[in-house]
Amino acid sequence: MPKLAVLTEFNTSVELQEFPLPEVSPGGALVDVALGGICGTDVHLRTGHLSVPLPIAMGHEGVGRIRTLGEGLTTDVEGEPLAVGDRVVWANNIPCGSCYECMVLKEPTLCKSRKIYGINRKATDAPHLQGGWAETISLEAGTTIIKLPDSVSFEEVITLGCAGPTAIHGVVENLNIEPGSIVAVQGAGPVGLASAMYAKAMGASQVIMLGGPTSRIEVALEIGAADAGIDMDTYPTAKERLAAFHEIAGHGADVVIECAGVPAAVAESIDLARPNAQVLILGQYTDHGPTPINPHLITKKQLKMFGSWGFAPSHYVKYVKSLPHLVKNHDLASILSVYHLEDVNEALADVASGKVTKGALRP
Amino acid sequence: MPKLAVLTEFNTSVELQEFPLPEVSPGGALVDVALGGICGTDVHLRTGHLSVPLPIAMGHEGVGRIRTLGEGLTTDVEGEPLAVGDRVVWANNIPCGSCYECMVLKEPTLCKSRKIYGINRKATDAPHLQGGWAETISLEAGTTIIKLPDSVSFEEVITLGCAGPTAIHGVVENLNIEPGSIVAVQGAGPVGLASAMYAKAMGASQVIMLGGPTSRIEVALEIGAADAGIDMDTYPTAKERLAAFHEIAGHGADVVIECAGVPAAVAESIDLARPNAQVLILGQYTDHGPTPINPHLITKKQLKMFGSWGFAPSHYVKYVKSLPHLVKNHDLASILSVYHLEDVNEALADVASGKVTKGALRP
Amino acid sequence: MPKLAVLTEFNTSVELQEFPLPEVSPGGALVDVALGGICGTDVHLRTGHLSVPLPIAMGHEGVGRIRTLGEGLTTDVEGEPLAVGDRVVWANNIPCGSCYECMVLKEPTLCKSRKIYGINRKATDAPHLQGGWAETISLEAGTTIIKLPDSVSFEEVITLGCAGPTAIHGVVENLNIEPGSIVAVQGAGPVGLASAMYAKAMGASQVIMLGGPTSRIEVALEIGAADAGIDMDTYPTAKERLAAFHEIAGHGADVVIECAGVPAAVAESIDLARPNAQVLILGQYTDHGPTPINPHLITKKQLKMFGSWGFAPSHYVKYVKSLPHLVKNHDLASILSVYHLEDVNEALADVASGKVTKGALRP
Amino acid sequence: MPKLAVLTEFNTSVELQEFPLPEVSPGGALVDVALGGICGTDVHLRTGHLSVPLPIAMGHEGVGRIRTLGEGLTTDVEGEPLAVGDRVVWANNIPCGSCYECMVLKEPTLCKSRKIYGINRKATDAPHLQGGWAETISLEAGTTIIKLPDSVSFEEVITLGCAGPTAIHGVVENLNIEPGSIVAVQGAGPVGLASAMYAKAMGASQVIMLGGPTSRIEVALEIGAADAGIDMDTYPTAKERLAAFHEIAGHGADVVIECAGVPAAVAESIDLARPNAQVLILGQYTDHGPTPINPHLITKKQLKMFGSWGFAPSHYVKYVKSLPHLVKNHDLASILSVYHLEDVNEALADVASGKVTKGALRP
Repeated sequence: MPKLAVLTEFNTSVELQEFPLPEVSPGGALVDVALGGICGTDVHLRTGHLSVPLPIAMGHEGVGRIRTLGEGLTTDVEGEPLAVGDRVVWANNIPCGSCYECMVLKEPTLCKSRKIYGINRKATDAPHLQGGWAETISLEAGTTIIKLPDSVSFEEVITLGCAGPTAIHGVVENLNIEPGSIVAVQGAGPVGLASAMYAKAMGASQVIMLGGPTSRIEVALEIGAADAGIDMDTYPTAKERLAAFHEIAGHGADVVIECAGVPAAVAESIDLARPNAQVLILGQYTDHGPTPINPHLITKKQLKMFGSWGFAPSHYVKYVKSLPHLVKNHDLASILSVYHLEDVNEALADVASGKVTKGALRP
Repeated sequence: MPKLAVLTEFNTSVELQEFPLPEVSPGGALVDVALGGICGTDVHLRTGHLSVPLPIAMGHEGVGRIRTLGEGLTTDVEGEPLAVGDRVVWANNIPCGSCYECMVLKEPTLCKSRKIYGINRKATDAPHLQGGWAETISLEAGTTIIKLPDSVSFEEVITLGCAGPTAIHGVVENLNIEPGSIVAVQGAGPVGLASAMYAKAMGASQVIMLGGPTSRIEVALEIGAADAGIDMDTYPTAKERLAAFHEIAGHGADVVIECAGVPAAVAESIDLARPNAQVLILGQYTDHGPTPINPHLITKKQLKMFGSWGFAPSHYVKYVKSLPHLVKNHDLASILSVYHLEDVNEALADVASGKVTKGALRP
Repeated sequence: MPKLAVLTEFNTSVELQEFPLPEVSPGGALVDVALGGICGTDVHLRTGHLSVPLPIAMGHEGVGRIRTLGEGLTTDVEGEPLAVGDRVVWANNIPCGSCYECMVLKEPTLCKSRKIYGINRKATDAPHLQGGWAETISLEAGTTIIKLPDSVSFEEVITLGCAGPTAIHGVVENLNIEPGSIVAVQGAGPVGLASAMYAKAMGASQVIMLGGPTSRIEVALEIGAADAGIDMDTYPTAKERLAAFHEIAGHGADVVIECAGVPAAVAESIDLARPNAQVLILGQYTDHGPTPINPHLITKKQLKMFGSWGFAPSHYVKYVKSLPHLVKNHDLASILSVYHLEDVNEALADVASGKVTKGALRP
Repeated sequence: MPKLAVLTEFNTSVELQEFPLPEVSPGGALVDVALGGICGTDVHLRTGHLSVPLPIAMGHEGVGRIRTLGEGLTTDVEGEPLAVGDRVVWANNIPCGSCYECMVLKEPTLCKSRKIYGINRKATDAPHLQGGWAETISLEAGTTIIKLPDSVSFEEVITLGCAGPTAIHGVVENLNIEPGSIVAVQGAGPVGLASAMYAKAMGASQVIMLGGPTSRIEVALEIGAADAGIDMDTYPTAKERLAAFHEIAGHGADVVIECAGVPAAVAESIDLARPNAQVLILGQYTDHGPTPINPHLITKKQLKMFGSWGFAPSHYVKYVKSLPHLVKNHDLASILSVYHLEDVNEALADVASGKVTKGALRP
């Protein structure tokens, strides 16, 4: 019987529980998990900061091999034939497709009735295996399944985890980065790293990362995600960071990508921007309430500011299509720390403490 | 000798001074002013809140008839032949055309070396007649001159004054308003009125104006610029206004246009917006410093926010092209109060006190 | 037992057949049809020019009142509560939502497995009542249902029929028409009329319609869809039409919308366009093979050309939202000819011969 | 006295003539040419296929060092201080800045009164040295001068010559290439090469070049501009090329860039495109008249087609900003053949025959 990581109470340890292998439903699939990614959201989720059902099937990031194909499921979303044993990734969410947000706004990320593996599925509800921290996951009909290209490994796909689709949605779809653009990225977590890599993939001549801890900035420089770093230890105040930034990029940033999460970062985004710049507010997932922002600067600098929230199945498709380009330029796997599924609590603790840049579980 | 309104000291009366009629320069023109518009900026300017040279040639809005054409000036910007006696409007500013802002960003409104009639021209410098509150204005080569279509009167052109080009730049060029869109306009001054009219011209099914005083909202409703109004007298708090707004537009606004000028209005803009909405920050011309804004809402609602500053010669061209459409739907001239040029100080006082919606001077 | 119009063989008469009222399925609805629109496609379909299954349930345009609501269907797509007796329109097509075209390209009009009422449903397959030329239509779960605003009548909704959503998709979503734009519309059929109205709704100062017959151009002028007409009788050659067009719009069209359907019209579109113009190719639904086009003009004039195909459920939503604006400016119902459902063959003949501008069937 | 290459009669040899070093005009500069690029246009120009004045000062591409700065010229367009000896490139054209095309359409490439060094300047008119195939060029006030970054050599700048700005205008400003896009480039000349490199800089996962001769395709593959090639020798028919293309990119191209120049290539562009693709028509500089194109495919595939013509000064600025990124990935200098200015006729012949990929003259 396959094991699944389950959280039964907030702030307790995650447990491995066994569940019977379910029947595959028509249009669905059973997938043997190769790696399940650990995301900052999992840390928050364990502590009860997010509204999730308990006991929850954990793991909203995963890759694996097709174990069983449900009736009628013969190809992936691009029309590529699917077979048992194929290496795949799946979108963790299934939007309804028919609400105003999904259909008219074409923003399934705003759909209020999305199903999300590893986030809003109870381990006690059949088919139980509804998370990616498991030996096998049961995917229902309507799940977007994408065959992986031979040139990318499981490790490379999971390193950016859901930060990859997040950056596709926020950075690639909202921003117009031209070859030669100067891009400021605030925040050195997985979303900051992914955003920096996409900025470079879109031609940015210089990606300057602001954030901390210093070790994270160093990782970004090592794997070539950023060209320069301004760390919080050396430049603890916004004023010092702005001065350091102008040393490198005199006129300011053509594009600013905020992935810091702290409200005060947004006022700093506006300061970093050159006139007519684009500013993406990608990190404000948690409601920390208002922060002082000077709206005169938005008018005077003629800024274009975008908010972007989460990701939809389409962003997984684009993420996988972009990976061969990304892995040519960045050693993604080098920043991944893999733990055995049995060591899930140790892995979660290491991610929470920032000891590892990115963690994943191998069943 | 033609008269020109001149401000010699801040917070004093404007005086009419006479200057000799200058020679027309090659590529330039002398224009006999029919109407010179009075703008809120003139009020601020008189009180010294703007950095302008003294003694200043007043009047940055004007329309009139060609008196003399300089050598080589044979057509207007659209290639229409120009002749003495033609009814024209001129762009009040001449950007340099070759700086980074003008040429690469294509945003001449950000040009740091623009010449602006009625704003940065000294009355003591030749050719003196460099403002629109005058009997004759001397336009130099490079000024964008636009012949008026027969179907629009001088009064109709001057009623929106520089609010027209401001709204072309901000509303028409930045926003995607579709037939059926619900648009919230914050602010009932000239920029608010112009923005509301353009929102309707772009197909908005419902324009809801929030602001005050109540009499201004009534004007907006009367001339058909707005379909509904939420005035500050009846709904003094942001919370009450938001509730009133949701009564009319349950899901929120597809587009919010902030023309209020008060920093706190921007937090309200964000609240009025539906998910995925566009928000234009058009009114924050003065730096009042920071205001509390919740950036989480920008991310969560996936807002697209735009700042827009001033207007360039191209926006006058589009403004004039759009006027025949506007005057079919709105009785622009009905909101204009015309004063004799000799009564310039009375006119300025009436605009300052809000006694008139829009004022203009007739020499 | 409700009647349904059925075509059993190509090039024969349409017959009314009776079918038992089906059970309503969960999430679906039974709707009593008020009007079923007749479209040019129905004419082609009858003659076998389209690949459709026989015997076919006819009618891909319709409006009516909710008769029975299936379990779980409580609101329309905008979240408005639905009740028996409500006046509604439904999208005639149900895209799959999960293919590459639907999900990644976000263009459900390109979905290869769409179900379309009145187009690809056999009358012999349960629930039989799968077309809009019927007393009652059975809508399955997943159909987009939209409550009609009180201010628009059934007649007004059906007059533009599927031309309305077609123009929303092509004109509103692809084109940037600014207040003041000069727009050329080629073709005076329903799509041409709808496109012209939307061009005006978006602020076009002048819509010039080219096409025929002359009576259709006159209709367009009468209902205010076009400001000027260039008819094929008076100007039979492309050269004459271009000359007539330049008389009105010296510099050429800012936007050209081709709804003519004849391949040669596309070369003419390019000639009508001013430099930097937008050209929408909306009428080339049938493959008539190649036509001579000069690609040098695309480069030299820097044209932006768009193709647009059909419409998706989202375009119905926007269509209904835009109708209150449209009906204020155009007497839509005046161009509708209503026939009794029993007279379906006469109605079809009148549409085929061009005797009526737009026809509809009332059960 | 500095030498300048002059063409006195069409179809004759280019001669070197000496002219006195002119005074530098205020706002202008004298620049000692380091390299003058040779472009296909020069070949056409020599044979009289373009309407140019004779005797013509040759050379519309060039780089060099500031020799003398005119009064008032202290910085380049980005505000960088300029000094004698600085390495610079200059935009070869000076648009008027005030016509409808320049100002309202913001497309100075459509300006009818542009001055162009090396194209519309007579060698007999003072200051004579008005072309880049010279020892010194005299740049007038209003010329856009750009300081070169230390990381790029004169050779690297001149290799793409005016193909660089052409691709910035056409590819970078018109197309939305996402990381992961599949891009087809038709044509292996300098514009094709530059377009391919920018497509890669914008993240294309696969650039497939179609064209000839085979040696040029090989060059594209060697310097990493293309990932795959389909050459005219192996695949002489459009049908064969399309089949070969589908072998590599099953669903068709997300983006097609036509730089072939042959009218028939445009029909092929449309065939290569996947549904919803973008197609840039960049190569149709010469009017060869109409070619058979099937407009049904534009509608059915919902293509977005763009024409793009030439380049403006702003495109040089962006070109220089993008070069550090480009030279990291492509050995630009490796495809440049440098000749001594004295050997101008040999160089021109080698470019005309295709013996060299790109040629330049060193004084």
